[in-house]
Amino acid sequence: MVANKKARTNPPYELLYWPGIPGRGEFIRLAFEAAGVSYKDTANESEDGITEVTSLIDASSTGTSGNPPPFAPPALRIPGAGPNDTPLIIYQTPSILSYLGPKLSLAGSNEAEAQWILSHTLTALDLNNEAHDTHHPIAVSKYYEEQKEESLKKAQDFREARIPKFLGFFERVLKGNEEKGQGKYLVGDKLSYADTTLWNVLSGLLFAFPKEMEARKSDYKLLFGIFYDGVKEASGVKEYLASDRRKPFSMGVFRHYPELDRQ
Amino acid sequence: MVANKKARTNPPYELLYWPGIPGRGEFIRLAFEAAGVSYKDTANESEDGITEVTSLIDASSTGTSGNPPPFAPPALRIPGAGPNDTPLIIYQTPSILSYLGPKLSLAGSNEAEAQWILSHTLTALDLNNEAHDTHHPIAVSKYYEEQKEESLKKAQDFREARIPKFLGFFERVLKGNEEKGQGKYLVGDKLSYADTTLWNVLSGLLFAFPKEMEARKSDYKLLFGIFYDGVKEASGVKEYLASDRRKPFSMGVFRHYPELDRQ
Repeated sequence: MVANKKARTNPPYELLYWPGIPGRGEFIRLAFEAAGVSYKDTANESEDGITEVTSLIDASSTGTSGNPPPFAPPALRIPGAGPNDTPLIIYQTPSILSYLGPKLSLAGSNEAEAQWILSHTLTALDLNNEAHDTHHPIAVSKYYEEQKEESLKKAQDFREARIPKFLGFFERVLKGNEEKGQGKYLVGDKLSYADTTLWNVLSGLLFAFPKEMEARKSDYKLLFGIFYDGVKEASGVKEYLASDRRKPFSMGVFRHYPELDRQ
Repeated sequence: MVANKKARTNPPYELLYWPGIPGRGEFIRLAFEAAGVSYKDTANESEDGITEVTSLIDASSTGTSGNPPPFAPPALRIPGAGPNDTPLIIYQTPSILSYLGPKLSLAGSNEAEAQWILSHTLTALDLNNEAHDTHHPIAVSKYYEEQKEESLKKAQDFREARIPKFLGFFERVLKGNEEKGQGKYLVGDKLSYADTTLWNVLSGLLFAFPKEMEARKSDYKLLFGIFYDGVKEASGVKEYLASDRRKPFSMGVFRHYPELDRQ
């Protein structure tokens, strides 16, 4: 495992995800960056990298080198880590994070913490999915404009019921762990991939629903008073966010449609 | 760990989930039943068991005995497995399954298989969530009747685009693993919690969308020719399905609204 933050050559890990957007690949990027471990972001780093992503999810594939076909990006390829020194390919964001967590020292200090970190990560990703569904409540294959009427309804429920439910929950998690985590960490006394994952979802919500979030922020003292800025300033994360490797939110999971925000 | 199928006394594991419906608790039940490991299903086994579930997710809770508050059921309580011999409580279906998997010998034979099993489980649970959203596309807090118009649109896309996408994917996974799994197992050469999880989702789809599934079944030779009946007849699962511990699908995640099925 390359643990030198400066070493970005021969990365052992390869992220396969769509280029140009943060998307679900961002949760994997943030884990690597927070750990200072180098990785190859194939579709962003090479012209034809996207063909590697599309071939991986080809609708006729039954898998490669003994690996099953991924259902969708992101996927992680680790040369030599599969059976008989073949590349290992795993997919699904929470599965990739649970695999990387202990290897990147982002999965807590014991089995209980590791499990809570995975649980909170899944909850943050549920919030991520619900945010996506505000602009695609009927069909992912159709344009937003084709489901705008339903989006207005879905977004209202999301803003009024779901955002406070999720934010209230994470505030309570931080409170319950305050003695160890001091409001900076969801679990234990150090950064985990649950923290970087929740941070990215909050960051996306601030982009997509700026008025709603501004109106609610002060209800969550630990979440927005300590946690959010703490992760943003964390070693590795801070440098990453200032780099051109961090892609801006645009038309991916998080989209800023003013009509879906608080009026 | 109690490995005797007959021993249902002093179970080390306690499932905390809503009573009377399969729901998301069913994925956990099936894992225990397939492994022949006893567990306490609190809300189904005692009159006031449901208060244990509701107190666990109380909206003001910051957790108990050093555990974080669960966001929602199911949760798993394991006496003595937490820090300082306190009970360990974990939540989120995939997190509970990834914890139990190795302990119940349902997580494959090596790290790669364990990871694929978690990945496929997450994908099957995504399908489960999409099935739920066909009758609740706008708001979980509202009745189906209040979002029926949107449900008709969502269900059409689910039937025409999503069902074939997911079933086609799992057929390819079985095909890619056919040498080892013989169409019976998604990963490797023995039953895993990915198999029981996918099986329950398929079972739910057959209940909720009987016409759609009947029309499509023959497209998936391994999935419905071998896999589905194989899991249903597996040791432990078969006995469970014949018992009164298996609750019928009714008005939970999977619901049979004839108007949402193929016409």
